[in-house]
Amino acid sequence: MKDTNCAYCMEGALVAEFGIKICELPTSKVYLFKEQSHPGRVIVAHKEHVSELVELTAEQRAAYIEDVCKVANAVHAVFHPNKVNYGAYGDTGHHLHIHLVPKYKDEFEWGGTFEMNPKKTFLTDEEYADMIAKLKAELGA
Amino acid sequence: MKDTNCAYCMEGALVAEFGIKICELPTSKVYLFKEQSHPGRVIVAHKEHVSELVELTAEQRAAYIEDVCKVANAVHAVFHPNKVNYGAYGDTGHHLHIHLVPKYKDEFEWGGTFEMNPKKTFLTDEEYADMIAKLKAELGA
Repeated sequence: MKDTNCAYCMEGALVAEFGIKICELPTSKVYLFKEQSHPGRVIVAHKEHVSELVELTAEQRAAYIEDVCKVANAVHAVFHPNKVNYGAYGDTGHHLHIHLVPKYKDEFEWGGTFEMNPKKTFLTDEEYADMIAKLKAELGA
Repeated sequence: MKDTNCAYCMEGALVAEFGIKICELPTSKVYLFKEQSHPGRVIVAHKEHVSELVELTAEQRAAYIEDVCKVANAVHAVFHPNKVNYGAYGDTGHHLHIHLVPKYKDEFEWGGTFEMNPKKTFLTDEEYADMIAKLKAELGA
């Protein structure tokens, strides 16, 4: 069931505030995070308006985690981070999504967690399009 | 293969710096996080010394996520948070573990991410033992 206040349900202008759609995978919608303090940062949102992993069945969870890992592998392949961090928060929302945040040795926030949105680094439309094209090619999307 | 510098491989004094063992599940080791700014905060570490979810097979991932969700359900049942956050970082380590961080409406860090370790709230041994007993009862461990 869609929630008309939810960015991941409605997309369009609500998603455009923070992300750009890359593609859909079997259980998920994948977005490039516009704030790119961590080059290659993306979001993998579930297609359903569920709040937490615990609300899915084991089979649904396994399928979603496969989507998440497919995207993480694409981020590794395109951007070569030293680690990818995975974070699911959404205290005030209700739509399951995981932030995939590539970390680079001795660069921004290396060795710690990551901010929800550092609001520091935004790119040109051409730079976003180039990142999205590379990720889509890796994802076969 | 165990890493002799890794807390989750060696346990003992290395884990005691931040956690107390609750139990083991099929693919994981579960620890109460000593820093309890978020009541009920725990860690679910994989039993193997792997760095990220992407290094497991799909079958291993699914089994690990079932452990994570079993623990998240126990945290919901015992502590009644409004949301549980899930975070996997470990930039400078190499051993897959997920922080399960219960969030309470309008309380500490509600609506955001969470700090790696706020270093503010520590409990008595009796309080830790009580939390662990309640979680073990929920986990059937």
